[in-house]
Amino acid sequence: MTGSLDKVLKAIKPLDSSAMSAAQSRQDSLTKPLGSLGRLEELSVQIAGIRGEATPKLERKAIITMAADHGVVAEGVSLYPQEVTRQMVLNFLQSGAAINVLAGHIGARVVVVDMGTKDGFQPLPGLLCQMIDFGTKNMAQGPAMTRQQAVDALEAGIEVLQDEAGKGLDVVGTGDMGIGNTTASSAIFAAISGMAVGKVTGKGTGIDDKQLAHKVSVIERALSVNQPNPGDPIDVLAKVGGFEIGGLAGVMLAGAAQNVPVVIDGFISGAAALIATSLSPQVKDYLIAAHVSAEPGHKLILDFLGLKPVLNLNMRLGEGTGAALGIFLAEASARILAEMATFTEAGVSEAEPPPGK
Amino acid sequence: MTGSLDKVLKAIKPLDSSAMSAAQSRQDSLTKPLGSLGRLEELSVQIAGIRGEATPKLERKAIITMAADHGVVAEGVSLYPQEVTRQMVLNFLQSGAAINVLAGHIGARVVVVDMGTKDGFQPLPGLLCQMIDFGTKNMAQGPAMTRQQAVDALEAGIEVLQDEAGKGLDVVGTGDMGIGNTTASSAIFAAISGMAVGKVTGKGTGIDDKQLAHKVSVIERALSVNQPNPGDPIDVLAKVGGFEIGGLAGVMLAGAAQNVPVVIDGFISGAAALIATSLSPQVKDYLIAAHVSAEPGHKLILDFLGLKPVLNLNMRLGEGTGAALGIFLAEASARILAEMATFTEAGVSEAEPPPGK
Repeated sequence: MTGSLDKVLKAIKPLDSSAMSAAQSRQDSLTKPLGSLGRLEELSVQIAGIRGEATPKLERKAIITMAADHGVVAEGVSLYPQEVTRQMVLNFLQSGAAINVLAGHIGARVVVVDMGTKDGFQPLPGLLCQMIDFGTKNMAQGPAMTRQQAVDALEAGIEVLQDEAGKGLDVVGTGDMGIGNTTASSAIFAAISGMAVGKVTGKGTGIDDKQLAHKVSVIERALSVNQPNPGDPIDVLAKVGGFEIGGLAGVMLAGAAQNVPVVIDGFISGAAALIATSLSPQVKDYLIAAHVSAEPGHKLILDFLGLKPVLNLNMRLGEGTGAALGIFLAEASARILAEMATFTEAGVSEAEPPPGK
Repeated sequence: MTGSLDKVLKAIKPLDSSAMSAAQSRQDSLTKPLGSLGRLEELSVQIAGIRGEATPKLERKAIITMAADHGVVAEGVSLYPQEVTRQMVLNFLQSGAAINVLAGHIGARVVVVDMGTKDGFQPLPGLLCQMIDFGTKNMAQGPAMTRQQAVDALEAGIEVLQDEAGKGLDVVGTGDMGIGNTTASSAIFAAISGMAVGKVTGKGTGIDDKQLAHKVSVIERALSVNQPNPGDPIDVLAKVGGFEIGGLAGVMLAGAAQNVPVVIDGFISGAAALIATSLSPQVKDYLIAAHVSAEPGHKLILDFLGLKPVLNLNMRLGEGTGAALGIFLAEASARILAEMATFTEAGVSEAEPPPGK
C-alpha cells in the first residue's frame, strides 16, 4: 500500500454526530408533521453528518464517469463490441449521452476519465487521462491486472476526487463505462461475498439466457483460475476487477476522507463500493445509494452493504445516470432542511397531545 | 351536470398513438442499450402521447395546491387543530413550506387555492379564491356538501387548470392542505372500492392506535349515515368528500382535456383521482403517480387505479411535495428523449446479434 492510499484510509473519520443532532432537531421544528418527509429527512441528516454542518448546501455537483476496457470480452460476455467503450467516451465529450442530459438537468458537471481504454486517446478537451494500461487482461486466463496496477487505479481515483474537491465540490456521483464491466463486477461480488456466481450475475446490456449461462461459466472460471482472497480487496480488484472499478473505489475513499457525500450509481459502482468498504468499513456512512438497478445482483450488493436505495426505476444503463437522479434528491433534502420555515417562524400550531395526556 | 364539467368530459380523448410510436422509435435509436432507462423511457412515451408530440418539452410547470377545511374534525380525527389549514395557507404564501422549497427546486410555480377554508381569507397576493363554502359539514352526521357544491368544486378545479393552461403549462402537479382530509379520502376510497374502512385508513399526520380505531369508526359511521352510491362519483364526493378533493379531481379532468400530464401526489390526490377516473376512465392515461405515500391506503388506491408510482420515499406530507419530485423525473424523461444523441449521430456501434443468428 503506497503513501496516498494509506493517507486517505487514515483520514476517514466517523460522521459528525453533533451536526447530525442539530439537523435532526431542525427537521423536527419545521412546518410539517414529524417525520412526514420520510427518506428525505434521513438523507438530510446523513448529509449534515458528512459535511459537518447543520444545514449543508449541495450546490457544487459533479458526476465522475470512469471508462476502461476489459480483456474478458474476448470470451464473448457482452452484446456490444468492445469499441463501444471508446465511442461512448467520445459521445460523453460531445454531450450526446444520457449522463450528459441528466447531469445538465441537475446542474452537475461531468468529469470523464479514461482509466484504461483499449487504444487510449490522444489528448482531448474534457477528457482526463488516468490510464493504468490498455485495458485489463482476460481474467478467465489469469489476473486482470497486477497488484501494483490495482493500487494505481485506486490512487488515480483518489487524485481525481481530490482535484475536483479543489475546484469546489459539495456532492459527487459515480459513473462507469466499460464493455464487459458487469462481468468483472459480478466476479468481485461473488469473490467478496462468497455467493454463487449464478446468483449475482445478470444480463448486463441485454444478453439472452444462453449467453447468460456462458457468462456465468466464464466468471466461475476466472474465480477458479485466480483464487482471489476475499479478505484482501486489492487482491480481488487485481485478479477479477477493472481499472474503472478501482478508480471509482478510490473516488469513494477520497470522498469520505474529504467529507463529500458520494452518491453511487448501479451495479458497477456497487462493486466499487464493495472494494472501498472492504478497505475502510467507515466509508459506508458517506455513501448514498441512488437507485436499485434492473441488474439483479445490484439489489444483493446494496443489501450486503446495508444501503437503502432512494429510487427504483428499473434502470440499468450506468454512466452515473442513476447517481444524477439521486443527487437531485440529496440536494432536495438539504434544501428542505435549510430553507423551510419552523413552526415558530411561520406561526403554525404544533400537534396537540392526545386527550388525557 | 352543468356545462363546463360536461364539456370537459367530452373533450377527453385517447392518447396520441402516433406520437407515442415516434417517441418509442426514437428511444430505441438513442445511444444506450434497448430499454436501459426503464421507467424513464416509459414515462417519456406516455408524455409524448399526452402532449401529442414526439419530443415534448416540459418547461412550464405548476403545482396546484388546494386547501379546504373538513367538518369531520369535530369528531377528533386529527392530531392537529383545524386552524393549521389556515396557518399553512399563509405559510405557502410566505414560501416557508416544504412545497415551496421543492417547487423552487424544480422550477415550478405554486398555485395556492382556497377551495373552502373555515374562516376564508381577505384577498391576499398569490391566493386564488375558489371557496365553495366555509369548510364542509361533519360527514359523520350527514352529507359533507350538497350535490351542487360537489359539481361546483369540480368546476372550480377545471377553471383553475384552464387559467393556468392559458398562462402556459406543460405539466402540472396536484397538492392538498386540509386538516381532516385523510379521513375524507379514506371514506371516498372505501365507498368507491367497497374495501373495508379499516384496510384503507391510516394514521394521517401521526395519530396513535387508539385514535386510529376512533377514526375508522367515524368513517364507518359517515358511510352508514350517508349511503354514498359507489356508481355515482359526484354523490360520493358530496356525501363524504372535501372541497379540495373535488377541486383536484377537476384539475385532473381539465388537464386530460387540455393534453397536460397531471403528476399526482399522495393519498388525497389519489382520492381525487378516484373521483376523476370514475367520471372519465380515460383520465387515467393522463396521470403520472409520483410516489407511494407512507399512508397505507395510498398504495391500495394506486393498485386500484393501475398506476405505478415512480418514487418510494416513505413521505406522507401532501401539499404536492411528492408531485414536485415526480415532475422532476417526468421532465428528466422528456429531456432524455429530446436531447440524447442517436447511435447514428454519435457514431456508436449497435448491439451485435448473438453468434449463429
